[in-house]
Amino acid sequence: MANFGLDDLRVVKPYEAAFREAVSAVGGAHVLQKARVFETVAEAVGDCSLVLGTTAAQRRDLQQPIEPLQTGMRRVVEHRGRTALLFGSEKFGLSNDDMSFCHALLRIETAAGTPSMNLGQAVAVCLYEWSRGTSGEVAACAVQDGAIPGSDSEQLTRMLLELLEQSGYTNRITSVSTEQKVRRWVRRVKLGKRDVPLLMGVLRQVLWKIREKN
Amino acid sequence: MANFGLDDLRVVKPYEAAFREAVSAVGGAHVLQKARVFETVAEAVGDCSLVLGTTAAQRRDLQQPIEPLQTGMRRVVEHRGRTALLFGSEKFGLSNDDMSFCHALLRIETAAGTPSMNLGQAVAVCLYEWSRGTSGEVAACAVQDGAIPGSDSEQLTRMLLELLEQSGYTNRITSVSTEQKVRRWVRRVKLGKRDVPLLMGVLRQVLWKIREKN
Repeated sequence: MANFGLDDLRVVKPYEAAFREAVSAVGGAHVLQKARVFETVAEAVGDCSLVLGTTAAQRRDLQQPIEPLQTGMRRVVEHRGRTALLFGSEKFGLSNDDMSFCHALLRIETAAGTPSMNLGQAVAVCLYEWSRGTSGEVAACAVQDGAIPGSDSEQLTRMLLELLEQSGYTNRITSVSTEQKVRRWVRRVKLGKRDVPLLMGVLRQVLWKIREKN
Repeated sequence: MANFGLDDLRVVKPYEAAFREAVSAVGGAHVLQKARVFETVAEAVGDCSLVLGTTAAQRRDLQQPIEPLQTGMRRVVEHRGRTALLFGSEKFGLSNDDMSFCHALLRIETAAGTPSMNLGQAVAVCLYEWSRGTSGEVAACAVQDGAIPGSDSEQLTRMLLELLEQSGYTNRITSVSTEQKVRRWVRRVKLGKRDVPLLMGVLRQVLWKIREKN
């Protein structure tokens, strides 16, 4: 909850009164400290105008519409009012009675055969999907590190070609096709601006070493 | 992992040999049973052509591009080859050395002040986003030339490091940071399958030439 900026934790009939002392991730202690304990689900969700339960949807007798997590969370984002996400116990999930307080049930799409998730993980996934919905669309592709100017590409090409020649590599193939190959290669591997001084430094050193010996 | 239909768990230097007996959610035991243990990250990701690390991005000295989870997972969905998601320990996360094996780092968008997530929850969120991407519409980012396996990247890294050493380049900077720098670089520039034999041929020749003279 703390990871996704939420802090209104409400616990119904906690098995252990010691839940407040549970070990939490760094920064999560305040959520446990201010958590409120209720005797019934009715009281816990009393001030919420939208209540969404979570289920692995294994039982046949579910009485509510089941929505994929994404649909449900979109609803939460659009809802103008307080929303409760209701999770059942690790072992039994939500009872029919618990579910009766829900406007809809959410299901995380899982692999066939293993629909039942760990409670903490299910909560994390739900809140992630919620937070994902609030942040809007993400830019299509990652922005690339600035490409390097043609003059740098060419200088690198020249240095590489000299290295190939000095080391005796270019004798094996005709040099024109090698030159084109190296030139294309330097442009095809996506070199960033930071790579240029590094690569040139290395090539200068290697060339110096080889020339020194020739 | 079982919830999202994945079962190829690889563990590097597990603290407890007993991890296989860990209590898992219903249906997850087979993942632990068939998990493989490795001594190094290099071996663990040896057959993977895309390695994505995860980070809370709290440290200032990160050397790799950091992508939002959604962008990274879109990449995984589109990648034609084996992908590894690399998670660090609960306490310390990934080391700089671990990260040097990654093509990019992923960050789950979290609330300011509480970026550090529980490991199991971070894994669940990542796999959920991945599974979400496989089922839904995937944006059309540029299709890559077949990426190269981790073992090739590592062999290139080794050859480049030897070249730096043999040519006297590595005396100038401390060798651990150089090693990580080179390793990151080999993974960051987008090498294609065709580049590997070419580059290795060149490096072999240059190394031979330098060794001959030393």
